[in-house]
Amino acid sequence: MTTADMDGYRDFYRGRRALVTGGLGFIGSNLCRALADLGAQVLAVDSLLPDYGGNLFNLAGYEDRVRINIADVRGHAMEYLVRDQDLLFNLAGQVSHVDSMSDPFTDLEINCRSQLWILEAVRKANPGLKIVYASTRQIYGRPLRLPVDETHPLQPVDVNGINKISGELYHLVYHSVYGIRTTSLRLTNTYGPRQLIRHDRQGFMGWFIRQVVLGETIELFGDGQQLRDLDFVDDVVDALLRAGASPAADGQVFNLGGDAPVSLLELVRQMTAIAGRGSYRLVPFPENRKRIDIGDFYADTHKVRTALGWTPTVSLADGLARTIEYYTQHKDRYL
Amino acid sequence: MTTADMDGYRDFYRGRRALVTGGLGFIGSNLCRALADLGAQVLAVDSLLPDYGGNLFNLAGYEDRVRINIADVRGHAMEYLVRDQDLLFNLAGQVSHVDSMSDPFTDLEINCRSQLWILEAVRKANPGLKIVYASTRQIYGRPLRLPVDETHPLQPVDVNGINKISGELYHLVYHSVYGIRTTSLRLTNTYGPRQLIRHDRQGFMGWFIRQVVLGETIELFGDGQQLRDLDFVDDVVDALLRAGASPAADGQVFNLGGDAPVSLLELVRQMTAIAGRGSYRLVPFPENRKRIDIGDFYADTHKVRTALGWTPTVSLADGLARTIEYYTQHKDRYL
Repeated sequence: MTTADMDGYRDFYRGRRALVTGGLGFIGSNLCRALADLGAQVLAVDSLLPDYGGNLFNLAGYEDRVRINIADVRGHAMEYLVRDQDLLFNLAGQVSHVDSMSDPFTDLEINCRSQLWILEAVRKANPGLKIVYASTRQIYGRPLRLPVDETHPLQPVDVNGINKISGELYHLVYHSVYGIRTTSLRLTNTYGPRQLIRHDRQGFMGWFIRQVVLGETIELFGDGQQLRDLDFVDDVVDALLRAGASPAADGQVFNLGGDAPVSLLELVRQMTAIAGRGSYRLVPFPENRKRIDIGDFYADTHKVRTALGWTPTVSLADGLARTIEYYTQHKDRYL
Repeated sequence: MTTADMDGYRDFYRGRRALVTGGLGFIGSNLCRALADLGAQVLAVDSLLPDYGGNLFNLAGYEDRVRINIADVRGHAMEYLVRDQDLLFNLAGQVSHVDSMSDPFTDLEINCRSQLWILEAVRKANPGLKIVYASTRQIYGRPLRLPVDETHPLQPVDVNGINKISGELYHLVYHSVYGIRTTSLRLTNTYGPRQLIRHDRQGFMGWFIRQVVLGETIELFGDGQQLRDLDFVDDVVDALLRAGASPAADGQVFNLGGDAPVSLLELVRQMTAIAGRGSYRLVPFPENRKRIDIGDFYADTHKVRTALGWTPTVSLADGLARTIEYYTQHKDRYL
């Protein structure tokens, strides 16, 4: 399939074998469901680490169509698991910025050392596999210019951003040195059903959604004017599917990003209006958050639009409504 | 001391306590000797890992003036060792590019995880310490433009380059988040007395020197026209001393680099002419080297010249003569 031929990327998955690391997590489980719906043979690998995003309920209704394998990716199990797969969607990660500062070694283990384990397993057992890696806009740090394109310097503000750079660069070096087909997508804030909302250490979106659904008061740090771009999870899944099906994406990195930046204050106003409950107030920045805050961020997505034909299709209002509806219905499974 | 006041940087070290990781290695031992000569109280910490650069003979004659502590930097010993120190010159590292591909986990342990151990030890036990970290031009990968300045994208071609990025970025984040005074120097090819010459996996300079001293035939890969810049080790030590003494260097990265680039062919011609022995021949690039070769490289050193007043002072001819003389006299200690 060529880039010009991206219309057929969904058909590409019929009968393909795809392994998803972090397959019980937020984005991973949404991807597993989409892959199964497209007729792929899906293997979800997850370590179900406590306090992380893995949740068996995320694959509810898909138990017969997605094989679940609980395993740590560091270990020889991966050499067995990657065999005979056509694709590996590599979504397992530690995503908390504050946790990466309070426990930098765990962040290193998961975002850095584990990636080497996965790549070595692929190199030894199945070097023909295609890999799509979930990177993050956190690697850019505080933007020097907006919107941020892929050539922006990498100057992360926390340990998580550093280790995610390693994870991405390992994938690129295994492409250039060993010819393994790897693509890295630099995700911005992603939201939607099946995200962790139990605690506030994995980004603001899950936490805001939780508080709105519970009718609580959201605390916005500073003046709430920080700009962010957001992607509904279905759009991120669509980008992953496009990257996996496209040889033109091999060895490449692509930003994802929302249609338009929104301030956190405006975001919270929309959320409470859509939900008809919840409220907000402005509070001073906590010191441990302020030190690693990145200010305004939104991504330039020209490259992915051109190469993969991707564009976000779910509006913020629609995505928020679907998310709030999901957690209102299933909140007992996520609290 | 201010930047304008860099003339006094050598006096700065009298009576100061300085810890040097990798203190028995090539650059570390030369630095320890210089620090001792300047009246500093020097503590050399080295793990003496087999096949690495540590060599007790490197501190011959300085046994009474440099305290030697054999230890792995990963472990609680570091929390004890950094106490009461004024400076930490962080030179411990795995420098082999080919080894980083054949054994990526060891490279990760030493260049990435060990750096977190060191920084966490400093944060907990002595956050007022000044740290100078030895980074490398390897983090740039194949240059997109020449000379390479500090804003050049980081796109390393091997695992070593990736893990050295992590090491440098950890130092910068521990500066921005915790206020620890850190400076990173991105070294180019360094040569001189006390470098490992036992095997060919730690860069070409030690290997070429060995073969010239032994009167052997150097194998140059490809056409020998690859450009490199080189620094004699005394010049690198001078840059480390300037960075350690300068508050203006805190939180900064600086390239080091030679006066003028030289082709490997021209370099080898000079070496054999100065030594009066040895020869060379051109051979095809071995596959495992070609895949991670960076082509031409030389650094833009404008920033370090301006900020720290540093400039290389030892000519290539003089540096090569001193190096060849050293190994001719002491080769039994290094073979």
